[in-house]
Amino acid sequence: MTVTINSDLGEGIGLHSFGNDEELLNLIDVANVACGFHASDPQIMEHTVAIAFRQRVAVGAHPGFPDLVGFGRRAISMTPDEVENMVRYQVGALSAFLDKYDLPLNHIKPHGALYGVASQQPEVMAAIARVARDYSVPVFGLAGTLHQEVAEELGVGFVGELYVDLDYSAAGELLIKRKPQPIDPAAAAERVARALETGKVTSVEGTEVEISFNSICVHSDPYNAADVVRALKNIIH
Amino acid sequence: MTVTINSDLGEGIGLHSFGNDEELLNLIDVANVACGFHASDPQIMEHTVAIAFRQRVAVGAHPGFPDLVGFGRRAISMTPDEVENMVRYQVGALSAFLDKYDLPLNHIKPHGALYGVASQQPEVMAAIARVARDYSVPVFGLAGTLHQEVAEELGVGFVGELYVDLDYSAAGELLIKRKPQPIDPAAAAERVARALETGKVTSVEGTEVEISFNSICVHSDPYNAADVVRALKNIIH
Amino acid sequence: MTVTINSDLGEGIGLHSFGNDEELLNLIDVANVACGFHASDPQIMEHTVAIAFRQRVAVGAHPGFPDLVGFGRRAISMTPDEVENMVRYQVGALSAFLDKYDLPLNHIKPHGALYGVASQQPEVMAAIARVARDYSVPVFGLAGTLHQEVAEELGVGFVGELYVDLDYSAAGELLIKRKPQPIDPAAAAERVARALETGKVTSVEGTEVEISFNSICVHSDPYNAADVVRALKNIIH
Amino acid sequence: MTVTINSDLGEGIGLHSFGNDEELLNLIDVANVACGFHASDPQIMEHTVAIAFRQRVAVGAHPGFPDLVGFGRRAISMTPDEVENMVRYQVGALSAFLDKYDLPLNHIKPHGALYGVASQQPEVMAAIARVARDYSVPVFGLAGTLHQEVAEELGVGFVGELYVDLDYSAAGELLIKRKPQPIDPAAAAERVARALETGKVTSVEGTEVEISFNSICVHSDPYNAADVVRALKNIIH
Repeated sequence: MTVTINSDLGEGIGLHSFGNDEELLNLIDVANVACGFHASDPQIMEHTVAIAFRQRVAVGAHPGFPDLVGFGRRAISMTPDEVENMVRYQVGALSAFLDKYDLPLNHIKPHGALYGVASQQPEVMAAIARVARDYSVPVFGLAGTLHQEVAEELGVGFVGELYVDLDYSAAGELLIKRKPQPIDPAAAAERVARALETGKVTSVEGTEVEISFNSICVHSDPYNAADVVRALKNIIH
Repeated sequence: MTVTINSDLGEGIGLHSFGNDEELLNLIDVANVACGFHASDPQIMEHTVAIAFRQRVAVGAHPGFPDLVGFGRRAISMTPDEVENMVRYQVGALSAFLDKYDLPLNHIKPHGALYGVASQQPEVMAAIARVARDYSVPVFGLAGTLHQEVAEELGVGFVGELYVDLDYSAAGELLIKRKPQPIDPAAAAERVARALETGKVTSVEGTEVEISFNSICVHSDPYNAADVVRALKNIIH
Repeated sequence: MTVTINSDLGEGIGLHSFGNDEELLNLIDVANVACGFHASDPQIMEHTVAIAFRQRVAVGAHPGFPDLVGFGRRAISMTPDEVENMVRYQVGALSAFLDKYDLPLNHIKPHGALYGVASQQPEVMAAIARVARDYSVPVFGLAGTLHQEVAEELGVGFVGELYVDLDYSAAGELLIKRKPQPIDPAAAAERVARALETGKVTSVEGTEVEISFNSICVHSDPYNAADVVRALKNIIH
Repeated sequence: MTVTINSDLGEGIGLHSFGNDEELLNLIDVANVACGFHASDPQIMEHTVAIAFRQRVAVGAHPGFPDLVGFGRRAISMTPDEVENMVRYQVGALSAFLDKYDLPLNHIKPHGALYGVASQQPEVMAAIARVARDYSVPVFGLAGTLHQEVAEELGVGFVGELYVDLDYSAAGELLIKRKPQPIDPAAAAERVARALETGKVTSVEGTEVEISFNSICVHSDPYNAADVVRALKNIIH
């Protein structure tokens, strides 16, 4: 079993960025590239895809709710139709930059609140999965939640993720924070090592949660994101 | 020589629309579909492409400046790189909906102020033409201006347009208005008949301007847009 | 007891409008003017306030969620702090136009999904009411819901509304629709006459709901909004 | 003569910021606070005004073109009416936060491309100055340009600025850059010392330009903005 490291990238806007993208693209296997709704803009998308191309990093779409101010971490109550069209729009926009570099779309991974809502509302997850099906790519998500269940029902590939910088509820759901918090690389490495060995993480309630994953997500917004990735690479390779 | 009728469609936003799209899609040959920057949203794009598919209307991308409030009729001073990435983003977003219906992208036609700027700044037109080249589609524009000149230099196909609801300067440039004004269908038909016969239109200064065209554009925002198209169809078919 | 008629106005964007504002401003007592987040833009706000000034219509702020595409009818999960700052921003923006015409701010009425969320989450209603308190104006809302309860707890004035074009749940809450539906002016007049006489409306479940109100809201988006207002004026004056 | 130091602040968006605001608010005299169009959002505006209140820093409005992606450094071709309403909207929005803290509006200073356009198009500068007149506050700008000339014609107060991190043309106009470049604090101090002594700065062409100023602007986007301010404070106090 090969475990990859993925990171959400291109999440700046105009002059602003988290500053870690270039270094992370040297280290990670898979990039989830923001598509202009929760973050990013056409310049940043081109730039991010160009670097991913040079570094041979696989690129997936990272669509989110239209909410630059809330960084896509605030749920918006949309109909499944609206979610599907919104995701299709963003995936199409990113694909234009991938096409320029003759890169295939690797996967779709919903961002922030969209990721959270999709794990709780099957019709929202189905909307996302229909777009993935049309592009013949898998979705990234949390194994054992609706992410996986709905994807598989629709015949869409699924890649389970482990998060090292977010807490899990006892039900195995992610507790998505509005603001990034830097994490200790050693603590991240320890969680991964234990998860690889035992297939479990500890929830915020202190209980053990079974976790199945093929990829580890490291967020790009904390300042020490690259250090975290380096610590993980020592564990998984 | 076949002259087509094209119209800029899908230019609503949320609950708002000009109200003419469904009727126009019954009448026209080619739709230039807005891509969410100067107008439109993912719901409207899906809806517009779905109807075009049913009515067998060819669909091109109609990218514009990011300016819902100004309806893309206010120029924004961008670098050529920014224009290229902005156009690529929008064309990609539209292509996602075309792919859903297995429709090919027919062409790219810049909207409003982007159309105007591209006829005056060769590097802006080149930015648009590069995207068209990557998609192997022609651009729509004004024959005899930089639209045609730059497209041809870059080996990109070109389709010249005649406008029936906008004035021409003595130099053959369009005088793009910020607000739509309904035009008399008979006057529109007369302009087309004369242009077909003589290859000329009269400028606002009263001089004669040579005009070469393969498609006639009718804007969808005036309330009587469909009447204008009907009057033209009597002339050209 | 005087019952006023209020309407949500200035809800266009750029070239788009519902087309009824000027006529409605001839007929109504109170305008709730959109502030650029769910609809409107600075040009429209100036124009709407200018007409309200000439027609001596009282003007309140109508802040909404930042969602032009969803017309503010999709809830966004914000913290109370975010709601307060978002409402304050919009009220301030509108106040700038009121100041130009030396008009006082009459009230604050949250729009669409914000209106709905505020009737269900006390901390959201409190956030809105704090802004109203700072401006020493009442809030408009649904009597008997958290709108009234929270406003009164915070010492903020309250004006209860009756809706003629939306359904009520058995619990007395409004069922806010995403798209406007024209209503029969006679049916609207009948609901008002009955509500004035009996203090009750019929819910969608068929039960009777007690309703207390000092103002009747007529939405401006259906094409026949002015006809509805005319029918109501015959009843209440 | 007292020379103040002013800085453009609150220019983040959501999770993004330039990171210097809190330190700068300890050092400067006058803050130009972004109003949500070229940067900022209601949370950031509240936060910035709250700190300015605590630090007794005077607060002016810093309205810009609606262009988060271009950071307001790309000109948008608007009518004077549109500029006036756009500026009024932003000034009103900021005023709501000032009112919360009982702070007066200190001045209006247009941002980026709006600053540049206003120095070249008198009707744009007049639109800005009319808003300042209605608020009875001065405008900040470049002495000897249309900024000063138009303000004075309209009876609006004027505060001339010196820039230490931008180049001047031989005509005394600022060459506004799209991306910030950190400057050497010592070089900045030298420019100020010389300008205070001789009333002149050197243009990019090498010629001497007369400069009259009462305030020195330090941009907040370069990482070393606070160091620059510290160097200047040694000179001017």
